[in-house]
Amino acid sequence: MDETLDKLRLARTEGVGPVTYRRLLARFHTPEAAIEALPDIARAGGRDTPPKVPSDREAARELEKLHHIGGRMVFVGDADYPPLLALLPDPPPCLSILGDLAALQGRGVGVVGARNASSNGQRMAEALASDLAAKGLVVVSGLARGIDAAAHRGALHVGLTVAAVAGGLDQPYPPEHAGLQAEIAARGAVITEAPFGTAPQSRHFPRRNRLIAGLSLGLVVIEAALRSGSLITARLAQEANREIFAVPGSPLDQRCRGTNDLIRQGAHVTESAEDVLANLPDDPRRTGLARTPLFARTTAEGLSDETALWNEPPDPDIDIAAAQSNILGLLSPSPTDLDDLVRRSFLPASAVAAALMQLELALRVEVLPGNRVCRV
Amino acid sequence: MDETLDKLRLARTEGVGPVTYRRLLARFHTPEAAIEALPDIARAGGRDTPPKVPSDREAARELEKLHHIGGRMVFVGDADYPPLLALLPDPPPCLSILGDLAALQGRGVGVVGARNASSNGQRMAEALASDLAAKGLVVVSGLARGIDAAAHRGALHVGLTVAAVAGGLDQPYPPEHAGLQAEIAARGAVITEAPFGTAPQSRHFPRRNRLIAGLSLGLVVIEAALRSGSLITARLAQEANREIFAVPGSPLDQRCRGTNDLIRQGAHVTESAEDVLANLPDDPRRTGLARTPLFARTTAEGLSDETALWNEPPDPDIDIAAAQSNILGLLSPSPTDLDDLVRRSFLPASAVAAALMQLELALRVEVLPGNRVCRV
Repeated sequence: MDETLDKLRLARTEGVGPVTYRRLLARFHTPEAAIEALPDIARAGGRDTPPKVPSDREAARELEKLHHIGGRMVFVGDADYPPLLALLPDPPPCLSILGDLAALQGRGVGVVGARNASSNGQRMAEALASDLAAKGLVVVSGLARGIDAAAHRGALHVGLTVAAVAGGLDQPYPPEHAGLQAEIAARGAVITEAPFGTAPQSRHFPRRNRLIAGLSLGLVVIEAALRSGSLITARLAQEANREIFAVPGSPLDQRCRGTNDLIRQGAHVTESAEDVLANLPDDPRRTGLARTPLFARTTAEGLSDETALWNEPPDPDIDIAAAQSNILGLLSPSPTDLDDLVRRSFLPASAVAAALMQLELALRVEVLPGNRVCRV
Repeated sequence: MDETLDKLRLARTEGVGPVTYRRLLARFHTPEAAIEALPDIARAGGRDTPPKVPSDREAARELEKLHHIGGRMVFVGDADYPPLLALLPDPPPCLSILGDLAALQGRGVGVVGARNASSNGQRMAEALASDLAAKGLVVVSGLARGIDAAAHRGALHVGLTVAAVAGGLDQPYPPEHAGLQAEIAARGAVITEAPFGTAPQSRHFPRRNRLIAGLSLGLVVIEAALRSGSLITARLAQEANREIFAVPGSPLDQRCRGTNDLIRQGAHVTESAEDVLANLPDDPRRTGLARTPLFARTTAEGLSDETALWNEPPDPDIDIAAAQSNILGLLSPSPTDLDDLVRRSFLPASAVAAALMQLELALRVEVLPGNRVCRV
């Protein structure tokens, strides 16, 4: 239990994202040791005050509230951690879950699309989700208005459905979907990365979208305008090597421009559940879904497979302060690829890794899932 | 002029299709010599009465009527013969044309689709045709209700459009498109394989569809149900190595099932003229559009490139009567590939060719464009 509290405290620390969480555990072996090391690392990154780590008591309060509404918390490396999500390059460290954990172990298929969907689009989503659920697939979506809600409803009374949400589990969004969320929790599962009590804001949605992509073997997009959130989810799914499906529509309807464009880029033309079933991998572990990030490898079994990089002793010949300013000079607010950064810095990868961790805990950079980093 | 009359008489002879027309000219060099040889060949094929060849007078009457309404006749090998059509494996021997022959020399793009098209589909067809015509492309279609008419109308006042029709030029079909046909003839061209005076019947439409495919560098399909005529045109265009474009639509609309299926099979997703322009070859002669049929090659220049096969003297060791019954036993009313037939007959290709010509003129088999043959 203490270890759970420490994991939660570490995961909820300012500046600790999925990448740094994993690296800290790889380097310090226990969350307790990592938490103890945080002030020094942040100071080395140029931060005067130590990072705000929640207290034991605060962490216990969050767990208690979650348990009170029947929820559970699962950490990367736990046996219950959703196996498809664990295949992401940098899986979310800490998940809050309401409902049946078994729903997260199944063959997920994402069904997402426009909030202002047409009635035909919603009919399509409901029928497709129902047919997929009847075939034993778990329909994953985002609880939003329009396509998402139609997909959940189509699957609900037929099989399993999972809602990935942006805010805390006690804050259903949109509010009129509180009842739908309760139904999903009763028959499937609701999952979030956000701490209990978090009111969902637009900055939380990218993580919600990544959960949808990560929990799914394939993602079906039904009605999506160009530059819409559903296309971002599709990009995340594609980066995670998941299959992309799109339902075609009239070019005269702006809501179909994004889906038609996905098809132009190679998404499977999808008119019915058969189109999905025919193109979905049977077993994700046989399909090469997992990718190897630059600095480390994470497996469904947890953190055992880290490369030695983060455990290497810092090279005494490297001036880490100089490395930091070198790296900061190469970064901008838009994400840079880690490979590029290492190449352009002319530093050993281990020095870049050490400097980035210090800078991240000093809240001066953000290391994003998928080997990207940006200046804060 | 006599040669023109003889070509027309040969082309209008019972049992003489595009393949046999070409082969007869290759073997006998002039249409006159071919006509003289017809009775013997038909008799060798098992036919008692000689084939019905139109008289000089009848042929002259047809030409006269055509000229009277301002039409012209063009034969394969003529300088005016449409160059894209000449690239088909077995181009139509004889075309009747109203309007501007130059329209048939341009970069054609077919635009076809459902007769019972939605108003959105018709809007799409009109806008697309207008944009394509504005870019200097010749919009080719079939004068039918729905998408065809919308495509012609979209192109008419912007650039060139060509209507390929199933019946005689004096028999516009559907009758309410008589005015549209006249407008097209005045600004573009109307073209048919059918003799003057022919009332269009359903059996004439496959030849009309082949004209549309053959006159086009690429074919755009807008709204087409599964198993519809537009999909047959698309198959013909694909067999002639033309680019296929399809406008996507809702899976809930039966009229989009065929177009979505074309996209599933690799057709270009088409939302605007840009999608067409980006994927259309510049010069058909540079793109390998022409294919080599089994027995002969036809070029844009006409008949000069025939292989020697048809001119080979019949092998005296082959019993042609036995070969005929062998071949008839291998054929059925559904088309068989010529390659297959040669293989399964264990006969030399030259013997199969000779026997087939006799059988076709005896009206016992039909040799179809694209190296296929069926029993009548």
